[in-house]
This record gives sequence, C-alpha cells and structure tokens, in this order.
Amino acid sequence: MTAKVGPWSETIPKDYARLMREFGIEEFGDLAEELPDPNHLMRRRIIFGHRDFQRVLGAMRSGEKFAVMTGLMPSGRMHLGHKLVVDQLVWYQRHGAEIFLCVADIEAHATRGLTLQDAERLAIEEYLVNFQALGLDLERCNLYFQSRSDAVRNLAYTLGRKVNLSELRAIYGFSGETSASHIFYPLIDVADILHPQLEEFGGPRPTVVPVGIDQDPHLRLARDVASRFKREFGFIPPSSTYHRLLRGLTGGKMSSSNPETAIFLTDPPEAVERKIRNAFTGGRPTAKEQRERGGDPDKCVVYELHVYHLTPDDRELLKLREACESGEIICGECKAKTVERLKVFLAEHKKRRKNAEAGVKKLIK
Amino acid sequence: MTAKVGPWSETIPKDYARLMREFGIEEFGDLAEELPDPNHLMRRRIIFGHRDFQRVLGAMRSGEKFAVMTGLMPSGRMHLGHKLVVDQLVWYQRHGAEIFLCVADIEAHATRGLTLQDAERLAIEEYLVNFQALGLDLERCNLYFQSRSDAVRNLAYTLGRKVNLSELRAIYGFSGETSASHIFYPLIDVADILHPQLEEFGGPRPTVVPVGIDQDPHLRLARDVASRFKREFGFIPPSSTYHRLLRGLTGGKMSSSNPETAIFLTDPPEAVERKIRNAFTGGRPTAKEQRERGGDPDKCVVYELHVYHLTPDDRELLKLREACESGEIICGECKAKTVERLKVFLAEHKKRRKNAEAGVKKLIK
Repeated sequence: MTAKVGPWSETIPKDYARLMREFGIEEFGDLAEELPDPNHLMRRRIIFGHRDFQRVLGAMRSGEKFAVMTGLMPSGRMHLGHKLVVDQLVWYQRHGAEIFLCVADIEAHATRGLTLQDAERLAIEEYLVNFQALGLDLERCNLYFQSRSDAVRNLAYTLGRKVNLSELRAIYGFSGETSASHIFYPLIDVADILHPQLEEFGGPRPTVVPVGIDQDPHLRLARDVASRFKREFGFIPPSSTYHRLLRGLTGGKMSSSNPETAIFLTDPPEAVERKIRNAFTGGRPTAKEQRERGGDPDKCVVYELHVYHLTPDDRELLKLREACESGEIICGECKAKTVERLKVFLAEHKKRRKNAEAGVKKLIK
Repeated sequence: MTAKVGPWSETIPKDYARLMREFGIEEFGDLAEELPDPNHLMRRRIIFGHRDFQRVLGAMRSGEKFAVMTGLMPSGRMHLGHKLVVDQLVWYQRHGAEIFLCVADIEAHATRGLTLQDAERLAIEEYLVNFQALGLDLERCNLYFQSRSDAVRNLAYTLGRKVNLSELRAIYGFSGETSASHIFYPLIDVADILHPQLEEFGGPRPTVVPVGIDQDPHLRLARDVASRFKREFGFIPPSSTYHRLLRGLTGGKMSSSNPETAIFLTDPPEAVERKIRNAFTGGRPTAKEQRERGGDPDKCVVYELHVYHLTPDDRELLKLREACESGEIICGECKAKTVERLKVFLAEHKKRRKNAEAGVKKLIK
C-alpha cells in the first residue's frame, strides 16, 4: 500500500485500506504482472484488492476451467462507471473464462420497486445492448434472469437453511422494519454466486466475482456458505476482486439518479459538453496560476476518466499527467480534448448498439 | 357452540373455541344447511369454523367463479387423516370450483430437509396417486410444484416487500436461530394462497382454503397481505374453513412418523388388523360391564373413523352409536366390523391407485 510515482495513483484510499485490514482482503498489487496481458484496470491498480485470486490465476495458467460471475441490477441508465465491470468481463472472456451474467430483476423488484416487466425492458435496452456493444459476446455467456431461474431460486432455499437471522443481522444490520424480501435477498445473491458450481452448470471450479468493495458482505457470506455446503456440493469458495469506483463528475458519488454526475452510454453530444464543462478538476483558481504551478491530476475527475476509460495507452496517459502537472495544458484545453474523445467514443458506441440490438433481443426471447 | 344430541359430537373442543374467539373465526354451524348437498364432513361439523365463507357460498349459489386452494407437503406416508382435505376437494370440484393444488416441495425442503427430487417422488407416489384414486380429477386441477412456479415465487418477493420482520416474529415467534429459508417461507405460502387471483390465473375471485386450525396464522397473514395489495392486484381476502383433525389410533396425535397412530392408504390387511386391535376406544374394563353400561363413542377413536370416513350415511352412523351406548355391541365386535370395512375400502383403493398411476405420472412430466 505504498504510493508510487506513476501516471495513476496507487495509494489505496484510507477507508478502503481499513476495510481490507478488517476483512482480510489482500492487495491485488503485483498479481497483475503475473497475468497474461493484464488490462489497464489491472495495470493501473483500479482493481486494488482480492480474495483468493491465486486460485483463478492458477486455472488460467494451467488452462483449467474457471468461471466469472457477475450481475447487473436494472435500475437506471448505464454510465461509464458501469463500464468498468464490462471491460473486465470482456478481458476474462478473451482469456477463456465462462461468464455467468445474472440480471438481478428480483433485486430490482425487491429493493427498488420496479415491476419485473420494467426491469426486463431496462435490462435489455440499458444494459445488455450496451454490454454487447462494449465487446462482450453475450451469446457465449451464461445469461439469465433471476426471476426465471429455477436453479438459482431453489438453491437459495437450500442455502438459506444454514444461514440464520442473527447472522444476517450481524452482516447487514437488519431491523424489525426490514421487509421479508429484503431479508431473504442475500440468499438469492449467494445462490447466484455459487450456482455455476452446481453439477448441471459445470461443477465445482474456481470462480471470480469482480465487485466494488461495498459488495464484500455478500462475498463473505457466499464464502462462508460455500464451506458449509462443501460436502453436499463440493463448492470451492468463490474468489473476488475489488475495484475502485469511478468518482462522479461533480466530485462526489457517481449515480444514475443524479444525471450530472455521470456520462451515460447513450448521452447526446450536448450533454457530454455540458457535463464535462461543469466537471470538478484539480485546477487552480486562475489560468495564470495554473500555467505557473500546474494542476493536480489526482484530484481531477476528468483525468480519472482518462485513467479508467479514455486513454488505455500508459505512455499517452503519462504524457497527459506530466502536461497537467507542469501547467503545459490547463483545464479548459484538457476538457475540450476530453469532450472530443468522449464524443468519438459515444458516436462509435451508438453504431455498435444498433448492431447489437437485434441479437440481444433474440437472445432473450 | 352448544352440544347437541346426535350421532356425532357437536361440541367444539375448548382450545379450538378459545382460538376462534381470539382470532375471530366464526362457527361453520348452520352454513352447512345452506349448502347444496353438504357432505358428511360439513353435516357432522367436522368442518367447524370459517372466515368469510359466505362469499364462497354466494358465488356457488349465483353460479359465479370461485377457487379452492390447498397444498400438500410431501414428507411421509399419506394416511386417513389426510383424506379429510381430499374429500373436501372432491366435493368442491363436483360443485364447480377451480381447484389449485400446490405441491409444497420447497417447504418440505426448507423445513424437513428433503431434496427436491425426493419430495417429487414422494409427492407423486404417496399423495397425488392417492388423491386421484380418492376421486379428485387431477387433470382438471391447477396442479403445480412450488419449486417450478415462476408466478408463485416471484409473487412471494412482491408480497414480501410489504411484510416486515417484526410482523413475522409476532406471528411465528421467529428467533435469531431461525434460518433465512424458514423466515421467508410464510411469504411463499401467502403467494400460493393469493396467486389464483392474479390476472394470468383467472383474476380476483372468491377463494377458500380448507385447513386445520394450526394453519390459521398463514391465513391471517394472507388476508392482511391481500388487503395491502388490493389496489395493485384487486385481491379479495381469501376465505377459509377449519376442520377438526382426526385423532390418532392410540388416542393422541395422528402422525406419519408414528405408524401405529394412523391407517395409511397403502397399509396391508395385517397392519390394519393390528392397529385397530390396539386402538383406543370408549369401552369399559370388562365385556360384562360394557354389556350392562354401554360404551362412550365420543371417547372412541374407532367410532371417530366411522364419523370421518367409514360410515357416510347418517342413519347408519346413528344406529352404530346407539348400539355402542346401549351395550348391544362391544369393542371387540365393533373393531372386527371396522377392520372388515377398512379392508374393503383399502382393497378397492389399491385397485383405483393402479388405474391412477399412469395418468398422474403423465400429468407431471
């Protein structure tokens, strides 16, 4: 957990570091170098932590089967923050993983009040079409809706026999006000994570779940539950990786429900211009001061967009960082360049969405 | 709740009466006389209580649609005590009801630890074949397994959003030790009860659930939940009827797990002889004393078999009662007669099972 001088920050934020110590998450760190062809998220330590990832690495190296499990909750528009997971899936798919992709429509229903019909529509239009357009081959994924998977829902009841209320309260802090659906939901989530290891889905094998650190409680529960049912199902405790979330454009949290904080994958050019123009940066109060003293890229959410998405080439990113720190480029210029790059990306993405649409709809029906 | 002189006891046992007062269950009583062609269970007040049964009676009289909902939990062998519900279903089916029959395999799994495969096998061999052999036309029923019904499981999550933990604890007394599956199970049960009223299953209509009084908590919850979702689904609160359970042959509770307490529907003749020989009666210490003072049919579980199952004709039952009370017939003779009647019934039932088997299996696959 040492800060290095480089084009991206390798310091793990304090609150993450505390959680890692508390719950025994290991640093992803140099594991990235052991990976074949690590992607920019791995190289740049955006994926900063893991549990048991060696198991997956071992499978990749020896050419054994392994799975990646993730879910999407249809509850708003998909933005660049969500792209992070898709980029990982695309990478894993290219490296031989079997991808399990769960549409968490029951969760959207239980926690956000969407009808299952609305959740389906949203899942297709806002998520799956984007996933495919971002390069994930959905036809080769094990894609399913929670509300239609007998295997997952029935496994949830099996697993739920060995998880009691005290335990759920300790993990999730449930109170008397918590609804029955909310209380049971973690078991569905655990069943999602473990079901790829059922015989009918390929049997026990290393599985990795890429998540934000806020999802760790589900992972801890899934690992505990896996060991409780080891004899019955032969489950291997699932591995996980933890990525930093992309900050919102205004400096706080990125959120679908606050549109100015996020670039949506279907944003029109005007929206992109406006949002980037208003974005929080690491600039100085005046242009003059910035030319003289340089900006602070580690504070800047625009720079973060380049680190996470817009500048996959490390040398190019380093140049941008140096130009910022030296005052060679100031915020207005950098923002204009960023807007251009985003516009090109979104225009191409729009075309790819068009190509993806029919295929995705066929896949669901 | 007055005792009448007749061939069967009409006194409602004290503990039932207390529950009825406490939870507002009404006496079934004279409603039986308003029914077209009431069966012996209704005439004899074995069905002793109800909630809102008038609603169903109204539908029957005006020829409107109504539904009957019941479930079977595959967890042991089916005995004469279970026949009680089947007799009611047969009667309702003859009177135009749409019957919804749920195989509670998730419940068997969640509360008894059966695998879903074992639960299915047991459901078919021990229950459904018997149901069909007892005169229920399963092909005309809406028969389903909980573990395979998307509609029921998804409805459970919808309903569970408006039921909180405090409420479940108040009704079922759950503690920290209670498993997650057990906690959520009541919502599945409520979804079973209410799903016939979803549009896709025929829409809102009077529904009656015939149960033992121990099942009343589920019914109260289902009625509360129905009103919470009235606007969304138009649910009519389900009606219910309550029947007395057949006592066990040894005088206590009848239970599959204690074979000497029950006549199973597949018992061989020797078992029937032995069980009836050992059955608890209302007889006197000596034959002489019984000839002089008569027996007490209301104490006698053998007599109860006649009331519930073996002697559907009221006049014939009255004769048996009088013969017992006058000492004209004593226990040994009565038991021999009972064994004969049971043997004939079970032999015929065996033939009817044979005829039913292929049809039931075809229905499931």
